[in-house]
Amino acid sequence: MKLWKKDYNLDKAVEAFTVGNDYLLDQKLVVYDCFGSIAQAKMLAKIKVLSGEEEKKLVESLKSIIKLSEEGKFKILQEDEDCHTAIENHLIKETGEAGKKIHAGRSRNDQVLTALRLYTKAELLHVMSLVTELVKSLQKFAEKNKDVPMPGYTHMQKAMPSSVGLWGASFAESLEDDFEALKTAYNINNQSPLGSAAGFGSILDTDRKFTADLLGFKSVQNNVLYVQNSRGKTEVMVLDALSYVMSTINKLATDLLLFTMQEFQYFSLPKTFLTGSSIMPQKYNYDVLELLRAKSNLVAAKGIELRMITGSLPSGYNRDFQLIKLAFFESFDTTIESVAILTEVIKCLQVNKDKLVAACTPELFMTDAALKLVKGGMPFREAYQQVTGKPVTKIDTVKAIKSRSGIGMPGNLNLDKEKVHKFEQLINSEESSWNSVKMNLMDWHG
Amino acid sequence: MKLWKKDYNLDKAVEAFTVGNDYLLDQKLVVYDCFGSIAQAKMLAKIKVLSGEEEKKLVESLKSIIKLSEEGKFKILQEDEDCHTAIENHLIKETGEAGKKIHAGRSRNDQVLTALRLYTKAELLHVMSLVTELVKSLQKFAEKNKDVPMPGYTHMQKAMPSSVGLWGASFAESLEDDFEALKTAYNINNQSPLGSAAGFGSILDTDRKFTADLLGFKSVQNNVLYVQNSRGKTEVMVLDALSYVMSTINKLATDLLLFTMQEFQYFSLPKTFLTGSSIMPQKYNYDVLELLRAKSNLVAAKGIELRMITGSLPSGYNRDFQLIKLAFFESFDTTIESVAILTEVIKCLQVNKDKLVAACTPELFMTDAALKLVKGGMPFREAYQQVTGKPVTKIDTVKAIKSRSGIGMPGNLNLDKEKVHKFEQLINSEESSWNSVKMNLMDWHG
Amino acid sequence: MKLWKKDYNLDKAVEAFTVGNDYLLDQKLVVYDCFGSIAQAKMLAKIKVLSGEEEKKLVESLKSIIKLSEEGKFKILQEDEDCHTAIENHLIKETGEAGKKIHAGRSRNDQVLTALRLYTKAELLHVMSLVTELVKSLQKFAEKNKDVPMPGYTHMQKAMPSSVGLWGASFAESLEDDFEALKTAYNINNQSPLGSAAGFGSILDTDRKFTADLLGFKSVQNNVLYVQNSRGKTEVMVLDALSYVMSTINKLATDLLLFTMQEFQYFSLPKTFLTGSSIMPQKYNYDVLELLRAKSNLVAAKGIELRMITGSLPSGYNRDFQLIKLAFFESFDTTIESVAILTEVIKCLQVNKDKLVAACTPELFMTDAALKLVKGGMPFREAYQQVTGKPVTKIDTVKAIKSRSGIGMPGNLNLDKEKVHKFEQLINSEESSWNSVKMNLMDWHG
Amino acid sequence: MKLWKKDYNLDKAVEAFTVGNDYLLDQKLVVYDCFGSIAQAKMLAKIKVLSGEEEKKLVESLKSIIKLSEEGKFKILQEDEDCHTAIENHLIKETGEAGKKIHAGRSRNDQVLTALRLYTKAELLHVMSLVTELVKSLQKFAEKNKDVPMPGYTHMQKAMPSSVGLWGASFAESLEDDFEALKTAYNINNQSPLGSAAGFGSILDTDRKFTADLLGFKSVQNNVLYVQNSRGKTEVMVLDALSYVMSTINKLATDLLLFTMQEFQYFSLPKTFLTGSSIMPQKYNYDVLELLRAKSNLVAAKGIELRMITGSLPSGYNRDFQLIKLAFFESFDTTIESVAILTEVIKCLQVNKDKLVAACTPELFMTDAALKLVKGGMPFREAYQQVTGKPVTKIDTVKAIKSRSGIGMPGNLNLDKEKVHKFEQLINSEESSWNSVKMNLMDWHG
Repeated sequence: MKLWKKDYNLDKAVEAFTVGNDYLLDQKLVVYDCFGSIAQAKMLAKIKVLSGEEEKKLVESLKSIIKLSEEGKFKILQEDEDCHTAIENHLIKETGEAGKKIHAGRSRNDQVLTALRLYTKAELLHVMSLVTELVKSLQKFAEKNKDVPMPGYTHMQKAMPSSVGLWGASFAESLEDDFEALKTAYNINNQSPLGSAAGFGSILDTDRKFTADLLGFKSVQNNVLYVQNSRGKTEVMVLDALSYVMSTINKLATDLLLFTMQEFQYFSLPKTFLTGSSIMPQKYNYDVLELLRAKSNLVAAKGIELRMITGSLPSGYNRDFQLIKLAFFESFDTTIESVAILTEVIKCLQVNKDKLVAACTPELFMTDAALKLVKGGMPFREAYQQVTGKPVTKIDTVKAIKSRSGIGMPGNLNLDKEKVHKFEQLINSEESSWNSVKMNLMDWHG
Repeated sequence: MKLWKKDYNLDKAVEAFTVGNDYLLDQKLVVYDCFGSIAQAKMLAKIKVLSGEEEKKLVESLKSIIKLSEEGKFKILQEDEDCHTAIENHLIKETGEAGKKIHAGRSRNDQVLTALRLYTKAELLHVMSLVTELVKSLQKFAEKNKDVPMPGYTHMQKAMPSSVGLWGASFAESLEDDFEALKTAYNINNQSPLGSAAGFGSILDTDRKFTADLLGFKSVQNNVLYVQNSRGKTEVMVLDALSYVMSTINKLATDLLLFTMQEFQYFSLPKTFLTGSSIMPQKYNYDVLELLRAKSNLVAAKGIELRMITGSLPSGYNRDFQLIKLAFFESFDTTIESVAILTEVIKCLQVNKDKLVAACTPELFMTDAALKLVKGGMPFREAYQQVTGKPVTKIDTVKAIKSRSGIGMPGNLNLDKEKVHKFEQLINSEESSWNSVKMNLMDWHG
Repeated sequence: MKLWKKDYNLDKAVEAFTVGNDYLLDQKLVVYDCFGSIAQAKMLAKIKVLSGEEEKKLVESLKSIIKLSEEGKFKILQEDEDCHTAIENHLIKETGEAGKKIHAGRSRNDQVLTALRLYTKAELLHVMSLVTELVKSLQKFAEKNKDVPMPGYTHMQKAMPSSVGLWGASFAESLEDDFEALKTAYNINNQSPLGSAAGFGSILDTDRKFTADLLGFKSVQNNVLYVQNSRGKTEVMVLDALSYVMSTINKLATDLLLFTMQEFQYFSLPKTFLTGSSIMPQKYNYDVLELLRAKSNLVAAKGIELRMITGSLPSGYNRDFQLIKLAFFESFDTTIESVAILTEVIKCLQVNKDKLVAACTPELFMTDAALKLVKGGMPFREAYQQVTGKPVTKIDTVKAIKSRSGIGMPGNLNLDKEKVHKFEQLINSEESSWNSVKMNLMDWHG
Repeated sequence: MKLWKKDYNLDKAVEAFTVGNDYLLDQKLVVYDCFGSIAQAKMLAKIKVLSGEEEKKLVESLKSIIKLSEEGKFKILQEDEDCHTAIENHLIKETGEAGKKIHAGRSRNDQVLTALRLYTKAELLHVMSLVTELVKSLQKFAEKNKDVPMPGYTHMQKAMPSSVGLWGASFAESLEDDFEALKTAYNINNQSPLGSAAGFGSILDTDRKFTADLLGFKSVQNNVLYVQNSRGKTEVMVLDALSYVMSTINKLATDLLLFTMQEFQYFSLPKTFLTGSSIMPQKYNYDVLELLRAKSNLVAAKGIELRMITGSLPSGYNRDFQLIKLAFFESFDTTIESVAILTEVIKCLQVNKDKLVAACTPELFMTDAALKLVKGGMPFREAYQQVTGKPVTKIDTVKAIKSRSGIGMPGNLNLDKEKVHKFEQLINSEESSWNSVKMNLMDWHG
């Protein structure tokens, strides 16, 4: 039965069209919705809308739904519309009156926002944790290969001598910036929407601070209309942060697809990472890299999808928001699987030093030649003209790397391990805090 | 077993990452892939790579897969990677040697393109047919309400007297233009990729014209490299055409969401189309219209998703193309359900004449007042200044509508039923042609 | 003076914000707006709103504006808001009463649409003409290099023997499909909006067929509200068609950027096409190709920009439409300059046969080896396994190309010159038709 | 003369195509490029590549360029390609040898990045300052109207009693979140790229910390390859932050366009903000709001434009980056003018209390009726069913507002003025820091 059941039945075609696949997608939210509902029940008990006995029944029943859901056994039917309805119906069936009381002072609008915010916190922490692992792998890779030469490219043409270390570390550093964006998204998401109801509050003496604390939110999201208006907006901010991570991955995959071509062979992957062709027996393909490239573009596109769905909408809840879920969930799943597989790729990446050394052809050293003249006092612009078109002597490549010793240059990678350590501390702290919250919500002591 | 099976096993994580949900999505293509394979078998028999007996076995086996698939019983496993592998494995199991021969002269690249083109033809015909139905509903609605007045708006402010007929017919005409775009997409898609193999042809004497004719394609898609390069590109063209239909729907839904607000009440829908609120007992919501608005934005976003995934890729097959499928299939499903439900909405749309007449307030007629002075010889710019700020007399609204009698104006809707008739003829002709093709492919006479 | 001047002055900041750069952009439309206004004047004379004398004065004055504009001397001021106001003010200054009469029965809404449609026709014809030139250059290039071998790639890995001819011709064929989309966009745009006024017609006996014929439109765009609603929509359709051309260019540029790398050197361009570096004396960069790649992505992005600006807007004119102009004009300019420069690139492209032949390494011929076994009767799947991992003998590459003789394969390019001829006929016919229209409009005989 | 001038001239068409409008756009960067060059000169003096005398000459000459540029007199020609070339040529003309020395150890790649980062810092501070002003206006507006009732809407249907105060404050709070995103973008941008040269450093003993400090950057951006790879990426992050501000504006404009319709008249603007129609004398249009809506969509689209241009590019500088500039500059200009004009709109917004009170029709109070039963002990779900369809008594609207007294509800807006104060402190601190930097750079003491 629908929560808003009136004296008529919804047209079947309209029901199928409006519910869409929401009842399937909502499986991801069941557990989080139960946590939100436990907090709601405790708050209603505090303000005496529920008796202690009713509160207890509800919490126990919600815990049993969590268990069912974790075992993949909690069903949401199309006619339930969404997880909120399925859960309330379940509670009413199991607890009677208490179940009929739980929705007092809330609406599905703030209820789903609460579940989404908790889901987002958990997923963002997961992403941050995987990104930190990837940064560590890249730093390790960079350190190991800091003296392996590699041509640097600009305009897709050979430019200057560089190193595999510099190349690998550049992605670590990119992810460090991305981490800051993830953190900001995490913080903006970390506000409690619960109790805002349909966006205008209610006449019930809802204690929003109490539920925010119970659920481990850093603060109450204040303006109840803004709570609704931040639907979609928060998702866009989160998605944008994910897209930064994915754009770093895009560049790394694009580079590797180039540098694993037969014409380069700078890097390779073990056969077990490579697929073949249905027609060409000799083929070894780097599909894993192609899909990393493609999936990063996919996540980037989701940001515009959400913006289009939520653009030019008036204040307050609009059903359009329902269509955000799929893109949002997909983007998390895609980002998580991509960061994880890339970490494996980096760990197994084979560096073909011979090919790299051979690729460092003399013309790469022409700028060095000009700068040597500069060191001798010649104006750079003259030195530039003087060496142009002249033959260049190739220098020992390892020496060439070491002679680039300014901050962050091939000879001075200056990897920031302290920063990684801070990332880990932050993640650990947020994870233990969330574990305490869960334990506290689940652990019933009246 | 994978088609490209070599002396190693793919890393499990890499396999999960690269296959993704392709093995599930490919269910949509099984039947079309079988049609393509029947044509391939017949062609191989024609050029003597297969014996008549082998050809027969393969066609029978492919027909049995079609049947299984239509009953939802043809399974594709993750380790199969895709439907092509599952089908070839099935054929080998059932027909032995013959199954091992079918892939001669083709690659999965042209095989999947063939299936996609056939799928696209069928889906586009479905869309065109539903769009034609919607045009007819809108024309009928317009005709019925051609004398019902309605304020016309510009800049979201009341502008001039108009009619419900003009408003309804405007969407019919919009869809008529959209139909032209669908037709162009249909034609561009209607070229046979089969036999292009991996994009470079083969040394086998493949008869591409023979398979193109068998499969009912209008022509062979000539350049075998362009065949591969049109992957993604064709999908973008098709999606763009769908997005035009959806953008027409977007405007209609946006209008209706405005005009069903309590402040307007120009239109309403039966209760059975409306949903309620979990907290507000008085609510009747037009979710169906909100979701039409949102879904049109969703389809529009998919066009950019495909462009991003396929942008800046070099020639030839790239695995990135795999990620096109989901967005492509979703866009067809979404467009089809949206056009269908909107046709129901139009059929049931209630026109509240009293509200509409009352909304035609006097200031709407101020331009008429100025133009009356023009008819008496006054320059328009003077007439404009003269009536500004003066009181206006409201005119009988039905008379006002009829007095706008130029081509396509409220008093002269000039609906184009002939065009609709041509649409139906085209659809019928293509549908019977496709039915003959299927019958011919399935009907084995040696 | 503004056309809608009332008893107050617009706030200066609001004026600057709302006019934006419209008064500058409108320079592109002045001439077309004058053509539209000549047709309007002739029609008003026909229905006796203007005397023959007034018509003559207006036409002469409009012709003088066209002349001024072509000399870059027609000024539009910020306080004029747009070209329509500047033109009407000019007419009133020069012709008095007649100028005050010209706006009878039209609105700026249909006026700007008329100018935009004429502009779009001319620009699309220009694009189609340049695309045809490019197709011809590519066909010529393909013919000349049809026997030059080139490795074919899939997954960015060497795949099969191919030819420079096949590669070049693939882009010609891609543009041939794009041309069809340009044609559809041209046809949909080729409908006359004039006389629809603000979207609801008027009580004046406007003869819309007469002006449509005078201006050379193929038909009257019927429903007057749809005329307004097609603002933005038509631009999206046109932009999408441009984006197809640009996506073909994107792939060509992406390929060339790869194949001109030092590691390939399959192709090169004369020095005069290459730029250098401010710091590295040895650099020769293919900026022209990089910018072709980037500009194609730019045009692709404009399609989503227009969709976002026009999405979820209610029927009728909305000022949001103003923001379409910049992206629309830019996209035409960018497409035109890109197609033109690419034609130069193709004409000057140097094919380094030695490098290409050397790149056709033996493993490319492994599929041939398997297919030879197939020709001898072995099932393909067995042949595939049998040759896997075995040494392959390199075949004479020219012979290898010729042996791929199926339709559209390297040995049988099957270039479609007839199609190109039809493109040229279409363009010529439309151009002469437009020239007659202009001559007729400009040539005053009372 | 070009910096990379060799023994040939660039083809004229290629030059026009590659330079594009860069030489015009670069006017925005001249001053910032001069600051960067002053720091470069001081650093080169520190490491003895320049003498004290040369350093002095260069600084004086750069100061004179700054002055010229501020007066609009510094010209960049198409053949100069960009501002960097124009400035170096100017320096060489004015200072001879010294000018030829300044480019030692840098490339145009890090040079333009330095200018862009400084430009971005200044523009972001400007945006943050204007956003803070807008927040203050909205808070003031909310406070003034905190007791003015207003219907709250969900699904575009009347939902619950709310207040003008809650509505206005919701946007203030939205902007407060947006400010956090602006801050993160500001911080990520606040890293010095100078000295990274073409992305691989150099053999010169460049002191990157010294120039970073001189230019007021918070830190050196470490990895020199990442410096190049952050081109485009940083712009995307900044643009995303701008797009959040614009999305808040979009919702506000969308609401106002609805609530200023004749059917609502909740709000209005002074006539001097409204425009008229060329044909309809009675029209008063809210173009300013329509353009705010459209411009927000425009800025949102720019984020995807940059992503498309920079997606799937390999590491290192690619000329594609040049096309970022226009969208980036436009987005700043558009955001700045939009926030500024909206602040004026809010200051002048007229609240029509009578219309708002009248719009609070009885059904809005039905949830209150149900919750009163809940307060009496009835389960909410029963109360919901009980009041459904029953007549509701309208309550005194001001009392109704006050009775919603939970955190952030209409009766308890809980405006956060402390946060605004912190914003102002941050802006002031950054602005004075930048002023000191400029003074220090300009003030020559040997």
